[in-house]
Amino acid sequence: MRERVKRIFKNVDDHLDLIVLMNSTEPHIDMSFFYATGVTDGIFEGCAAWLRPDGSAEIMTSALEEQAAKKSGLPLHIFRHREEPAKLLRDLLRGHRRIGVNAAELTYEAYTRLRKYAPKNARFLDVSEAVVQARLVKDATEIESIQKACDIASKSFEETLAFIRPGVEEAEVASELVYHMQKNGATGPSFRTIVGSGPNGAEPHYTAGPRKIEKGDLIVIDFGSLYRMYCSDVTRTVVVGPPSEEQRLMFDTVAQAQKAALAKMRPGTKGKAVDAAARALIDATKYKGLFIHGLGHSVGLAVHDGGALHTTSELVLKSNMVMTDEPGVYVPGFGGVRIEDTVLITPKGGQYMSSARRELLEV
Amino acid sequence: MRERVKRIFKNVDDHLDLIVLMNSTEPHIDMSFFYATGVTDGIFEGCAAWLRPDGSAEIMTSALEEQAAKKSGLPLHIFRHREEPAKLLRDLLRGHRRIGVNAAELTYEAYTRLRKYAPKNARFLDVSEAVVQARLVKDATEIESIQKACDIASKSFEETLAFIRPGVEEAEVASELVYHMQKNGATGPSFRTIVGSGPNGAEPHYTAGPRKIEKGDLIVIDFGSLYRMYCSDVTRTVVVGPPSEEQRLMFDTVAQAQKAALAKMRPGTKGKAVDAAARALIDATKYKGLFIHGLGHSVGLAVHDGGALHTTSELVLKSNMVMTDEPGVYVPGFGGVRIEDTVLITPKGGQYMSSARRELLEV
Repeated sequence: MRERVKRIFKNVDDHLDLIVLMNSTEPHIDMSFFYATGVTDGIFEGCAAWLRPDGSAEIMTSALEEQAAKKSGLPLHIFRHREEPAKLLRDLLRGHRRIGVNAAELTYEAYTRLRKYAPKNARFLDVSEAVVQARLVKDATEIESIQKACDIASKSFEETLAFIRPGVEEAEVASELVYHMQKNGATGPSFRTIVGSGPNGAEPHYTAGPRKIEKGDLIVIDFGSLYRMYCSDVTRTVVVGPPSEEQRLMFDTVAQAQKAALAKMRPGTKGKAVDAAARALIDATKYKGLFIHGLGHSVGLAVHDGGALHTTSELVLKSNMVMTDEPGVYVPGFGGVRIEDTVLITPKGGQYMSSARRELLEV
Repeated sequence: MRERVKRIFKNVDDHLDLIVLMNSTEPHIDMSFFYATGVTDGIFEGCAAWLRPDGSAEIMTSALEEQAAKKSGLPLHIFRHREEPAKLLRDLLRGHRRIGVNAAELTYEAYTRLRKYAPKNARFLDVSEAVVQARLVKDATEIESIQKACDIASKSFEETLAFIRPGVEEAEVASELVYHMQKNGATGPSFRTIVGSGPNGAEPHYTAGPRKIEKGDLIVIDFGSLYRMYCSDVTRTVVVGPPSEEQRLMFDTVAQAQKAALAKMRPGTKGKAVDAAARALIDATKYKGLFIHGLGHSVGLAVHDGGALHTTSELVLKSNMVMTDEPGVYVPGFGGVRIEDTVLITPKGGQYMSSARRELLEV
């Protein structure tokens, strides 16, 4: 993980002695803790990672996480009692003058605690932008984990298709899909599975409820799995029985928009240009204005992993970034279509990492 | 939810104009946002709740969450574009001089943003202790949700028992249990399910891996479900085939410790006294020193919901608190036993909310 730590420091303009990544209680865990240490299991509440400019790292961990922490091969500072972390923090911060913190994933309470135990003359600097920049470009190990998370999600979706039929509740479809993902090796879903049937599909952030699937429904299914702490993120829209002309048109419009964006997903392109490629296509149809969210976002240790592709995004794509390509059209009262894949940016352009069939599937 | 908001203000010593609960990107969501607004669905990244001393509340929400936010019946300030939140924040903070924030669940980045948009003379105060105090004592709606989360977990555990046999992987047992919880109405597990078989059971924070269950294993199964955003938390230890004398002794020791702690779980008792009741019993046996974590913790919107019962806990139990009672004994290389229930504190004493059979079950 030395390279990852070095990369974070390289992205910081100022000179720093130390970067501290500090976790609070779940869910307030800094995912960069796992990035910088390479730990792929455990919770690590109240634990911290100590990063140094030479790429070295140390972990301050509770005895409860000792086994998981050991697998990193990094030096450990283990606390067993409630009073120990304060002393450990004071010892570990001693002599440091310029300390970086990841403000985007550090609670204000934890920050206040760090200040309290740091030398009086220490200056704290927010390095969250440097952390995001480092995490945006994935290394081989990360890509391998995301690929596996995509494979599991794709396979599990295909296995779940036979279960989707009129009379089945949305929430049952979600459970079935999660079950297959776990059976196929995921540690869990990477976010709460969305199964929005009929009119519910028109709410992009709907999850899954008791509504029973009906003949003629469009169903938006947005899902992903977690593998070694890395996420995948995929959406497919299926139709129950033969699609109407309207449904087919909506689907084809979104499918074309997705392809148009993919074609733009090459190193050097700005996020807003990728978004515009899909949006222009949708806005040239009767569905103008109904693509009500950004085109995509970075995927990694978090499902929304820092960067995003939207109408004003200045993010410049680079090789080995992993982004979603997920245009949608939402017609209130009628339903929605979204097609989403996790995409690896390669020197030759965007490459789908998720492989579940992309056409309008009839169930 | 007026009473909840009033309760938070009542717990603050200083006079305040306003409390702001502000979410960042997942997982950095302030669970108190859901507490204060009564919203039971959605993600609400980048959204905020505005609380006032008279108990009133308003929600600042992205259009993506509008439907879920509407169900609260509270006034909404909806933003559709990336530039709007800044303006909204400035407008909503205008005229406020003393503003409370929940430092324990607010990122340092979000805090900095609030400061930036607040009037220059505004003072910010950390109200996280007041929030924890309010959330510790549950109201009827909360208890109902936690009871349902306990019922689902208990029923699902019983349904999963038949699946546990030699040759099955720990991770498969975990998937099966999660599947049953979702089928029984949970929105998901309340934390990553632990299935620690044989020697793995000796690590309290182990999760579930590829190890195949063997005859003679003790298996620690720690699980919980999420219902309307509220958690349950239960552990059962089962044995594969007839238990050895050693296994029986370990189990009985922990079972007695759990009962001893339950007997102490009445209003007015300090957390450390509850912990001591279980610990003294274990430390009087050959398992002295092998109960390596605290006795329990508060359960609510988070599975670790603020207060805890451990060796130095000064927390005084009150009616309608919900706490776990979870002693354990961990023998490195051999295995572990933990028995855990979610317990409601009533005027008459602790009452198990989880009902899965508590004896040493042979599978």
